[in-house]
Amino acid sequence: MNLFDICQDKLNRIKAEDRYRVFADLEKQADKYPYYKHYRDGRVEQVLVWCSNDYLAMGGSDLLVNAVHEAVDQTGVGAGGTRNISGTSHYHVELEAELADWHRKEAALLFTSGYIANEASLSTLLSASPNMDVFSDQKNHASMIQGIRKGTARRHIFRHNDLEHLRELLEAADPESHKMVAFESVYSMDGDIGKIEEICDLAHEFNAITYLDEVHAVGMYGPRGAGIAERDGVLDKVDLIEGTLGKAVGVHGGYLAGPAHVLDYIRSVAPGFIFTTSLPPITAAAAAASIRHLKVSGQERAMQQRQAARLKQAFADAGLPVMPSESHIVPLLVGDPAKARDFSNRLLYDHNIYVTAINYPTVDKGTERLRFTPTPRHTDAMIEDLVDILVPMFNEAGIRKRA
Amino acid sequence: MNLFDICQDKLNRIKAEDRYRVFADLEKQADKYPYYKHYRDGRVEQVLVWCSNDYLAMGGSDLLVNAVHEAVDQTGVGAGGTRNISGTSHYHVELEAELADWHRKEAALLFTSGYIANEASLSTLLSASPNMDVFSDQKNHASMIQGIRKGTARRHIFRHNDLEHLRELLEAADPESHKMVAFESVYSMDGDIGKIEEICDLAHEFNAITYLDEVHAVGMYGPRGAGIAERDGVLDKVDLIEGTLGKAVGVHGGYLAGPAHVLDYIRSVAPGFIFTTSLPPITAAAAAASIRHLKVSGQERAMQQRQAARLKQAFADAGLPVMPSESHIVPLLVGDPAKARDFSNRLLYDHNIYVTAINYPTVDKGTERLRFTPTPRHTDAMIEDLVDILVPMFNEAGIRKRA
Repeated sequence: MNLFDICQDKLNRIKAEDRYRVFADLEKQADKYPYYKHYRDGRVEQVLVWCSNDYLAMGGSDLLVNAVHEAVDQTGVGAGGTRNISGTSHYHVELEAELADWHRKEAALLFTSGYIANEASLSTLLSASPNMDVFSDQKNHASMIQGIRKGTARRHIFRHNDLEHLRELLEAADPESHKMVAFESVYSMDGDIGKIEEICDLAHEFNAITYLDEVHAVGMYGPRGAGIAERDGVLDKVDLIEGTLGKAVGVHGGYLAGPAHVLDYIRSVAPGFIFTTSLPPITAAAAAASIRHLKVSGQERAMQQRQAARLKQAFADAGLPVMPSESHIVPLLVGDPAKARDFSNRLLYDHNIYVTAINYPTVDKGTERLRFTPTPRHTDAMIEDLVDILVPMFNEAGIRKRA
Repeated sequence: MNLFDICQDKLNRIKAEDRYRVFADLEKQADKYPYYKHYRDGRVEQVLVWCSNDYLAMGGSDLLVNAVHEAVDQTGVGAGGTRNISGTSHYHVELEAELADWHRKEAALLFTSGYIANEASLSTLLSASPNMDVFSDQKNHASMIQGIRKGTARRHIFRHNDLEHLRELLEAADPESHKMVAFESVYSMDGDIGKIEEICDLAHEFNAITYLDEVHAVGMYGPRGAGIAERDGVLDKVDLIEGTLGKAVGVHGGYLAGPAHVLDYIRSVAPGFIFTTSLPPITAAAAAASIRHLKVSGQERAMQQRQAARLKQAFADAGLPVMPSESHIVPLLVGDPAKARDFSNRLLYDHNIYVTAINYPTVDKGTERLRFTPTPRHTDAMIEDLVDILVPMFNEAGIRKRA
């Protein structure tokens, strides 16, 4: 029995536990979003997608499509090198300046993804001193957990958004150690929001630096769309802000914004930053165009918030088990992996509606759900149709709203 | 003193050790490659770049530029989701099929970068069994080292390309353990080539699986451009092949090709695969176009090999300290970080020629170098000019060819 046989065994177990994932073979259509093509059984169907993180429909906008047309004629496709070896383009330099300005920070640093931005930044910072403690919200994203695990700091997990627990842990730690508190603004699977100001104030009381993941919020909140910290007027309390270009911005890649010397240090030592081809310049060009627009246009955000509120209300009015989200994310609790997958499949094959079942390990076992992310292009009629289809499905399965 | 002050201290040390890197602010020009724009001191100069990994000049080719124009009109820019949550597009599915066919493997799996392909695949496979040994070539790339460190397997480093040492280590290991041998084909900083067939045969003698990083070889070697394993007719001896779309292919992203169930397992459990937005469909479209072309066209490879051979010969004829590369990579040994940087700066500012100084941690201290990567678009005249500029520079510094 070699290593590959072990893989087969483990795969069989995943299937037996109803955790095996089949990826839907889709194709976004720039001019018809949120309708996608779905390739199935040798034919192609048009399906309505309810689970994209292209929250503001920027990905297929004329603005971004044209930015790519223009940049690709100028500069071609790939960057052709790491940032240090001919892979820094003027598009990267300009985008980093846009990002720093967005978050009102000294500087910003691009990574090939939000995942790597978290993994590389946290692991680097959390290995910088031999006497260090990190305090991490229990619900932090997998990429933050990976970065924190890779660092050498002592790890303390505080109960989700629980200031008292965080204070207890900070008080119990070595007063002389170097400290960081790491958390998120919008928690992507539940849709609730971190207590940014309170957590930052508490952290700074203990001389801890603050690291905030805003990937589900950038583009979405605040007068210039810089996220929840901007909306709440507490940008200056957050030392480091991590964001993505792959969700509301509509493109690809991740970044960290903060003090120039801290980013300069990460830039100089993090393997996940150094040893990788930089983002294609066309990606940077499209992201910069998107952010410039989102800084001055609140229209997409307002429309998105309106449709998210309507969807929540429609689910609640229909007695569907909508979870108490404070954000634009609208999860419906199913509570069973096989049922969640069955719902998703029936929606797709019987109704040409696509929403992924969210199962373990993305969420805890027992909290499996369907997660809806309305965009400005999801109409009121689409919401009504969706409710009409979901109600009998949930009724039949005996799943109703919990009090 | 908080964590950020520590960063400043460490940064000061990097500067004191002459390891501080300044990224050149460049801009690839699709129609003029390998000439780039260089943004400096408020103006823009045209510079000749000698260190891009867009080895075959595919990145700015009409083929790829047109593939992007076409795809972006169809599908927009970003994928808008993870592979599982609406981020699998038909472009991804088709590209994975192209890649599997390229390497004559059952399947292929895309990652957001070659770095993540290595990190995620190795760490996942090397944590699959409680009793496991990994044997890793001493010169393996940082991304492989990160993946291997993150796995739970016992680590054994064999001397670079040393079969006897590898055999010793294999013989000393638990005969019952699950084993992997991980190595590269083209080592990117020295340009030498792994003994693929011998290492695979030896590995299989001990029931170890083989993992080969071909990132600097894909597109470049073999009748269909699939790499050194294809060139040497030993594709079937390599169990897993890791490659990139960001170098000779001219685009962005990474992948692993191998047995379907092994990739299915990685796909199902690796955080670096699961919890990240998938590559933009336009990236997948351009990469597929490039690979389809490189499977049938040997012209770019032949021209690139010719110019690489000419450059090596010209360096040797001029008495420059060219390192004994077996591949398309042409390193000139400098042996000192400050000198290497000084050469690079003088080439850039005095001669409008760009080649990055390669210093620690990318290479060992004392082996600092300039690393040249000629493409099919680097002409004989460019080679002559380069030699004419380098010879007095190396002479003046007292650096000559070693015997």
